[in-house]
Amino acid sequence: MKKKITPKIMPGFMELLPAKQLAFDRMKAIVQNAYESYGFTPLDTPVLELSDVLLAKAGGETEKQIYRFTKGDTDICMRFDLTVPFSRFVAKNQNDLAFPFRRYCIGKVYRGERPQKGRFREFYQADIDIIGNEKLSVVYDAEIPSIMYQVLTTLGLKRFHIRMNNRKLLKGFYASLGLEEQSADILRLVDKIDKIGAENVRLGLKDLNVPLEICDQILSFVEIDGTSEEVLSQLSALGIENEAFKTGCEELKIVSDALMALGVPQTHYKIDLKITRGLDYYTGTVYETTVDDYPTWGAICSGGRYDNLAENYTDRKLPGIGMSIGLTRLFDLLDDVNLIRTKGQTPTDVLVLPMGDGVSYPLAVARTLREAGIKTEVYFADVKFKNKMAYANKTGSPYVIILGEDEEKEQVVSLKNMATGEQEIVSLSMIAEQLKGLLSQKEELPVIAQE
Amino acid sequence: MKKKITPKIMPGFMELLPAKQLAFDRMKAIVQNAYESYGFTPLDTPVLELSDVLLAKAGGETEKQIYRFTKGDTDICMRFDLTVPFSRFVAKNQNDLAFPFRRYCIGKVYRGERPQKGRFREFYQADIDIIGNEKLSVVYDAEIPSIMYQVLTTLGLKRFHIRMNNRKLLKGFYASLGLEEQSADILRLVDKIDKIGAENVRLGLKDLNVPLEICDQILSFVEIDGTSEEVLSQLSALGIENEAFKTGCEELKIVSDALMALGVPQTHYKIDLKITRGLDYYTGTVYETTVDDYPTWGAICSGGRYDNLAENYTDRKLPGIGMSIGLTRLFDLLDDVNLIRTKGQTPTDVLVLPMGDGVSYPLAVARTLREAGIKTEVYFADVKFKNKMAYANKTGSPYVIILGEDEEKEQVVSLKNMATGEQEIVSLSMIAEQLKGLLSQKEELPVIAQE
Repeated sequence: MKKKITPKIMPGFMELLPAKQLAFDRMKAIVQNAYESYGFTPLDTPVLELSDVLLAKAGGETEKQIYRFTKGDTDICMRFDLTVPFSRFVAKNQNDLAFPFRRYCIGKVYRGERPQKGRFREFYQADIDIIGNEKLSVVYDAEIPSIMYQVLTTLGLKRFHIRMNNRKLLKGFYASLGLEEQSADILRLVDKIDKIGAENVRLGLKDLNVPLEICDQILSFVEIDGTSEEVLSQLSALGIENEAFKTGCEELKIVSDALMALGVPQTHYKIDLKITRGLDYYTGTVYETTVDDYPTWGAICSGGRYDNLAENYTDRKLPGIGMSIGLTRLFDLLDDVNLIRTKGQTPTDVLVLPMGDGVSYPLAVARTLREAGIKTEVYFADVKFKNKMAYANKTGSPYVIILGEDEEKEQVVSLKNMATGEQEIVSLSMIAEQLKGLLSQKEELPVIAQE
Repeated sequence: MKKKITPKIMPGFMELLPAKQLAFDRMKAIVQNAYESYGFTPLDTPVLELSDVLLAKAGGETEKQIYRFTKGDTDICMRFDLTVPFSRFVAKNQNDLAFPFRRYCIGKVYRGERPQKGRFREFYQADIDIIGNEKLSVVYDAEIPSIMYQVLTTLGLKRFHIRMNNRKLLKGFYASLGLEEQSADILRLVDKIDKIGAENVRLGLKDLNVPLEICDQILSFVEIDGTSEEVLSQLSALGIENEAFKTGCEELKIVSDALMALGVPQTHYKIDLKITRGLDYYTGTVYETTVDDYPTWGAICSGGRYDNLAENYTDRKLPGIGMSIGLTRLFDLLDDVNLIRTKGQTPTDVLVLPMGDGVSYPLAVARTLREAGIKTEVYFADVKFKNKMAYANKTGSPYVIILGEDEEKEQVVSLKNMATGEQEIVSLSMIAEQLKGLLSQKEELPVIAQE
């Protein structure tokens, strides 16, 4: 007999068994539905791109992680995020698109990282972006977190915060302190305050030669807390006469007011002056979403406002606002703390178990059920009843239909509710209607099993 | 200004603009729903695999087309189909799965082919397979084409034929003619009869030293035509006393009877003794689906029965039956003959156009609509009414809501039906209900616009 090859996969790749895969797919469908409910349109760009096109901007750490190879004479990259291909797409097709252009993309991206817990080499990102032609209203900056609120609550996540800040406000604040030149270093430092603590930030500021008195001002600035309204009034009370600062405050006010109109509760968003996000990209509103019970997870979705989506590819100014969820990472984190709710190994609503050799009646019953929109599987194997029920139990369909000779003769079915064990005889002409009713009463529990 | 990079993609990669992408995604969703309606469970294997695992079986043409590269010390391949990763998955997880194991997978696969019309380097496959543990009932061989019938008719395809044959029957037939040794060459030749014609097959058979009289027998065998019943009775009349032949006929009979019980009309399937499929893999039922109006397209979905899914990875015998649709190719073919129906550039049901500066009322209206399950977009840009309507027309939402100062004051909306141009005033408290009603009346036309 031929030598067998061990059927292993590479580390850093998530491959799920059916029950978990079904849960992951429910998660993906919820994200997709939420994105579409706001009128975002799907795009699907290639996983492979020409290296000189994809790497127009990349460099440093990103470039090292990229899966890059040649085939023939072509230098090829696997996409490492969804944003760069999207910017290439918009530049390429700008004359065919209607602006503001609202697109979502849920797809796999690749990073050849050293595999470690929580770091994936292949993972799903779920991105939304709204792109303006030359300009884009700041009201859209409220739509994006509103969608994320809808996504996360629909998934079943209870306690989380969408944290918002504004880069103009930060820029103006540090300018008002005369720290324009050091502002990048300071922002990077302050962004870490939740991890390293205020004292270490103070030491770091000292190393940057920030005067002691100004350190205090910075630390009390980033620790401003409260509702949006409270934070904005404290910011106003600082009396800073700087245009960028004022614009930033106004934008945050517009976003906060719009979030209220959109029905996002104040318990789930806040202004957080500590967060900054990528320094060379974002220019206005920035977001980070954290899960209250799991602060060590860091941000589970993030994004912000940028001035130029596609400056490497086009002269046209394409400002945008976007946000991204790392679905694979989020699923993995939730699964680690047993918060993923599974429902069996199959999407099947009802499993038909024929007891005899006849196939026509079981297939006809299945046909009737499928025509009524009921997901139906028929089990054909010449095994004992016990083994048939073992299959039913292992796969986990909520209902089982048992068909023996008597059932066929009388044109009925035996319907068993697998949760309660109750069994009843139902006529063939009624079974689809009855099962549809039973299934529609079943409460669809969220993917995330958080109390 | 920095030099711009041309935002191009590689040839052989399909990248769609929004209207077409939406149509493609509708197609994908229809396939997925049909697969799930038969209780198939989704799997998602990595796009990258270890070369020595993935290429356990491959060789020749396939291997040349593979995207293969090293990263660090790892020899990596991009998957070139969904079957090999699936067989690796089943071997790896055989003790956790319930058999028969029914999985579907809709995903991208990669082949570094020379790009040419209709050949893609990245394309979606949509596979279903049912895998038995040691054995698997032949009734399942009817379920697979029944699903494909459902998929294709739901897509809107009208005239197509699922052609079936059986390899045991062929094996037995050629054995009965004393042609066992040449049967592979003969099958390859006969498989081409629709392309090259009977006379060329006759010449080819002569080259294979098949006696003239037997050529006639082969040609009249492959040209047996009619309903399943008619074909089976003609086969029976041949009086061939060969076990494999008889088993093949019996299996075709079971499959035909089961297809009838499943409600697949005889107008859409037939026994076709010409088709063979891959010689080193399939062992029983084989399928090929052709579109009547476009015979040059060849098979748009195909598959069959195999004895050993995963013989490179496990000693356990895992027989299976499966079928696959090349979604990207099918979409491309349909699009070429203008059979893809698009519906605008957005999934949006209703576009809200605020006329003034106020944002709260438009956002509150949008919230109300979204909560009722209506896909709603709000347009914020300080442009003329004409430009707002141009955006509405370009993106193609079926309804538009216009909100001026009067509407807000009176807590109403102006609802415009974009198809008819009719406009009416509806109260805020009624709008969600009314739009839901209007949208539910709209007939959802199939993706394929075939008469």
